[in-house]
Amino acid sequence: MSLLDVIFGKPLSNQADEKERVGPSSGIPIFGLDALGSAAYGPEAVLTALMVLGVLGIHYVVPLSGAIILLLGIVYFSYRQTIAAYPNGAGAYTVASENLGRFPGLLAAAALMIDYVLVAAVGIAAGVGAMVSAIPSWQPHTLLLCLLILVIITMVNLRGVRSAGLAFTLPTYVFVGTLLLTIGIGIAKTILSGGTPIPVDAPARLHPATELLGAWLLLRAFSSGCTAMTGVEAVSNGVSAFREPKVKSAQLTLSVIIGILMMLLAGIAFLCQAYHIGATVPGQPGFESVLSQLVAAVAGRGLFYYLTIGSVVLVLALQANTAFAGFPRLCHAISRDGYLPVVMAVRGRRLVYSQGIYALTIITALLLIAFSGITDRLIPLFAIGAFLSFTLSQAGMVAHWRRKRGPYFRHSMLINGLGALATAITLGVVIVSKFTEGAWITLLVVPILLTMMYKIRAHYDRVAQEIAHPAPLMVENLISPFAVVPIQQWSKVAQKTLRYALALSPDVIALHIDSGDSCDLPPRWRELVEDPARKADLPVPRLVVLKSPYRSIVRPILNFVLDLEARNPERPIAVVVPELVEKHWWQYFLHRQHGRFLSLLLIFKGNQRISIINVPWHLDAPPSNALHAIPKHEAESPQRVA
Amino acid sequence: MSLLDVIFGKPLSNQADEKERVGPSSGIPIFGLDALGSAAYGPEAVLTALMVLGVLGIHYVVPLSGAIILLLGIVYFSYRQTIAAYPNGAGAYTVASENLGRFPGLLAAAALMIDYVLVAAVGIAAGVGAMVSAIPSWQPHTLLLCLLILVIITMVNLRGVRSAGLAFTLPTYVFVGTLLLTIGIGIAKTILSGGTPIPVDAPARLHPATELLGAWLLLRAFSSGCTAMTGVEAVSNGVSAFREPKVKSAQLTLSVIIGILMMLLAGIAFLCQAYHIGATVPGQPGFESVLSQLVAAVAGRGLFYYLTIGSVVLVLALQANTAFAGFPRLCHAISRDGYLPVVMAVRGRRLVYSQGIYALTIITALLLIAFSGITDRLIPLFAIGAFLSFTLSQAGMVAHWRRKRGPYFRHSMLINGLGALATAITLGVVIVSKFTEGAWITLLVVPILLTMMYKIRAHYDRVAQEIAHPAPLMVENLISPFAVVPIQQWSKVAQKTLRYALALSPDVIALHIDSGDSCDLPPRWRELVEDPARKADLPVPRLVVLKSPYRSIVRPILNFVLDLEARNPERPIAVVVPELVEKHWWQYFLHRQHGRFLSLLLIFKGNQRISIINVPWHLDAPPSNALHAIPKHEAESPQRVA
Repeated sequence: MSLLDVIFGKPLSNQADEKERVGPSSGIPIFGLDALGSAAYGPEAVLTALMVLGVLGIHYVVPLSGAIILLLGIVYFSYRQTIAAYPNGAGAYTVASENLGRFPGLLAAAALMIDYVLVAAVGIAAGVGAMVSAIPSWQPHTLLLCLLILVIITMVNLRGVRSAGLAFTLPTYVFVGTLLLTIGIGIAKTILSGGTPIPVDAPARLHPATELLGAWLLLRAFSSGCTAMTGVEAVSNGVSAFREPKVKSAQLTLSVIIGILMMLLAGIAFLCQAYHIGATVPGQPGFESVLSQLVAAVAGRGLFYYLTIGSVVLVLALQANTAFAGFPRLCHAISRDGYLPVVMAVRGRRLVYSQGIYALTIITALLLIAFSGITDRLIPLFAIGAFLSFTLSQAGMVAHWRRKRGPYFRHSMLINGLGALATAITLGVVIVSKFTEGAWITLLVVPILLTMMYKIRAHYDRVAQEIAHPAPLMVENLISPFAVVPIQQWSKVAQKTLRYALALSPDVIALHIDSGDSCDLPPRWRELVEDPARKADLPVPRLVVLKSPYRSIVRPILNFVLDLEARNPERPIAVVVPELVEKHWWQYFLHRQHGRFLSLLLIFKGNQRISIINVPWHLDAPPSNALHAIPKHEAESPQRVA
Repeated sequence: MSLLDVIFGKPLSNQADEKERVGPSSGIPIFGLDALGSAAYGPEAVLTALMVLGVLGIHYVVPLSGAIILLLGIVYFSYRQTIAAYPNGAGAYTVASENLGRFPGLLAAAALMIDYVLVAAVGIAAGVGAMVSAIPSWQPHTLLLCLLILVIITMVNLRGVRSAGLAFTLPTYVFVGTLLLTIGIGIAKTILSGGTPIPVDAPARLHPATELLGAWLLLRAFSSGCTAMTGVEAVSNGVSAFREPKVKSAQLTLSVIIGILMMLLAGIAFLCQAYHIGATVPGQPGFESVLSQLVAAVAGRGLFYYLTIGSVVLVLALQANTAFAGFPRLCHAISRDGYLPVVMAVRGRRLVYSQGIYALTIITALLLIAFSGITDRLIPLFAIGAFLSFTLSQAGMVAHWRRKRGPYFRHSMLINGLGALATAITLGVVIVSKFTEGAWITLLVVPILLTMMYKIRAHYDRVAQEIAHPAPLMVENLISPFAVVPIQQWSKVAQKTLRYALALSPDVIALHIDSGDSCDLPPRWRELVEDPARKADLPVPRLVVLKSPYRSIVRPILNFVLDLEARNPERPIAVVVPELVEKHWWQYFLHRQHGRFLSLLLIFKGNQRISIINVPWHLDAPPSNALHAIPKHEAESPQRVA
């Protein structure tokens, strides 16, 4: 068992694919972590935006959360229909491409890619935010903790999707259970106390108001809160990962996820108002997350508090896992259409699209570093991608029903149309209200991604056209190449290479570089090579000696080959390069790597008619095989080649 | 003019070598910086060792310096004779090898290599020490300044030896001039004041005594002071870099260097006693070098002070240049004998041995980092290498005269014998008195270096024996190889590769990897390839389809080739690998680099009978050349090959 196997698990064969599929119970953690985890930073984002209103701000949490829950309901019905209509998944990209055309499809793809990256970044950052709320002394190490968690998630995901779900099931259920319990107890206490419950552990004191209430401020708070809705599309993208019956399983999973999320959002909003809980300044000492304050206020800082915050940390950090399940699948789909590098479409050892996972890890890490791992700074970049893809997906579904005209198609069009309208309006609100705070970055990246995708496709199209060859093999004009053999001194290696060239071509040119050191090869050439070849009635290899006053070996050979090629436009050229292959790594440093360097240079500076033949000489190999001895009778019948 | 040219100068041809040679006036800075710069840290090292005696310690500077100057005189006469006897340089290594045998020679080589590295490290560290004496606020950045200077020296030296001398001449002469002037003024003031001169700027107060005077302490101070003698051998190593008459030029240069050095050591010792100047704690805030205190005491901290310290900084920092002139030459000499990697013997673009310069830079950097760039911590490692090579060199000269028996050979033997004896005793003193302080590191490195050198030579000997082939070309049993052609889909690239294989061998095997994706190549093989080949009376390429359940492409091909090789012990195998060559770097990421990966794997996992043929397909190349069209009449006469 290799080290790779231990870390990433054994490679899985194609037949193992079906077993890697999931049902609703493990589908909820895998595809729902994003949506559910949003409950931890959505309300927090609303309260952070309202912070400038001081105590007054808290009264607007409930109405704003109500608006978000309403929007969530609309989007839920929309996505239910999408799952049914597209049982093979890929969400907004597929829906928009098939129903609205190539450009809206790629626009949705770009939006989704951005969304996934931010899901990963925000999930990790918010998880670490919860962690440093419980352990304030870790606050200075926020970024380091973020990157550590990113590495762990990456490694878990490279093992494959089902083991990932298995590892994440427990924390998700603890998270949902403890939070719902907290909300239940909090509501009971509020009712029993006649609406003014006494907190067990007092929340942070609210800052005094520094701004006046205004519509603009409420819009910004609403936009921030819309991040609570991100991740709703994950199920519809991943339908193909569900066990049969795929559609039913996926719809059930979606319903459970949305139902829990609504309860969490409503409960948190209600209790924040009841307990007078507001946000603290993000990224500063003294920061404590809203959920941490809330649980402490309802239940105190006992075992239950640490169990809850522990699960919040895990779920938030592992929310990123949704992105790691979705992003590589999305890239795979785009890549299959030729708009992303072909490696994205290749499954790795463990049936996951490894390249997509690497790409997501790198971009997320850069994003976390750029924003110091602080959730609040990432929020403005976040909702745009999600809502742009929501809108395109719903709009695509409208076109889908219109084209299909099944029973009740007007009803279906209405539901998706409403979804498209609501999310489009929200998108507009988010762009305008968050533009200067960071939304411009997302808006800048979208056209860059689009341009890149179109360019990649154009490249593949051009290559495909260039190498396309529908006709059968052309058998005319087969011709053996010029064989060029660089030889610095006479040795078994030189002999082997020269014999190889003689077996390949009637025109063998040996090249010797004279860089000022004395060498007896040129004067002995006749005796060593020409005479034996002539005697055996073989074509006689010519020796060309090149002066190299600048002591370079490789460059003069390259120039000679390019010149020979230019002077013989009708002949291919094969450069036969002897290469010492070392047995131990340290031996590499004991030999000048001319062979390897020359091969690389010939490939990149050469052209269609120059090929490179590497004839290896393995050091310390049993010598008997080196000369290709063959039975006499075969050697006597010369083989026809050209 | 390329960027390389701008930074390192244009490449120089072999004929430019003579012009790069130096005379005495530029030889003094190049080969003397080490010896002269020692004046700045030798007395300092003595005083640092004496620091524990408080004010009493200062009285022992003059006698200890006297002993060191005496030793210097003995070594001077010894090396004068060496230069005359060996006008081609290479010093201790050559002398010990030729006269005492292989092992003493390599021992001297190891000692010299260590010495050079420490010359570079101590020179730079002491230079920065002088710098932070004048500008105390830079003291915390000691290591950074050291590394910066190392990079500058490396780049200057990669340009070649003469330009280096030109750039260093002025500071050396300013250094010698200002220091001699300081000493002259100081002596005059001392005499005029009747032996108790009043310092213009008072030196640092001496620490109270913490130890009692003892022979052991004086021995340690003497050992530290012996570092003032390092670098004396540089001239004799570099005789070949001098203009004709080489011997006279080199001897003159050596005499001037030693004469100045003696005056400096004597003058500094005298003034330290007269002005009551002691060392300060190295590496601590408040550190001020002895030379800085001395110049300030004699002349105050005016323009002259900064000019002097400026030249001290430059000379000390650039002392390392001696190592950069000597170390690569030494490595070249050892490498020519086969005891160091062959690249060390190769001259670079600017006629310098670039690899030696790189090696020296890396080791020096590691040493500076390990010892935080503080001179005093490096001193105990230092003198051993120098005195070991001194001893071996003098001892070798004794054997040389004995063998030669020229006129006055007894006289010559006596001089070199005295040198050998004196330096051998000093070496013993240094090893014993500095062992626990760091000398053990040097003593540990010597056997490691020796083992490495013997192992390298053994490797070269084995390879030379393995590939040696005194007989002329074997012309029997030339046989064309099996040609294995990996083909994933039918295209112009596939056709080109297949045609190449057909021109090469009558046994062509096409390999197709089936990793579960549908592909129409296997069903169409007959129509696309077999039928045309049969019709043209060509050997018919066989198609082998390999299943790859783990989606790997490269691994199954490798296994097939190794298996084919094992089953056909009498035939060589050529794997014809098509390779897409991208025109732009970004295109590299758009294609799976199977071809390149397969080639590498075949070379390293393959064996003597497996060769690799890279058939490039250059994207966006003019298509006309791709098929090697040839004039009709040539194509009609098939060419005999085997």
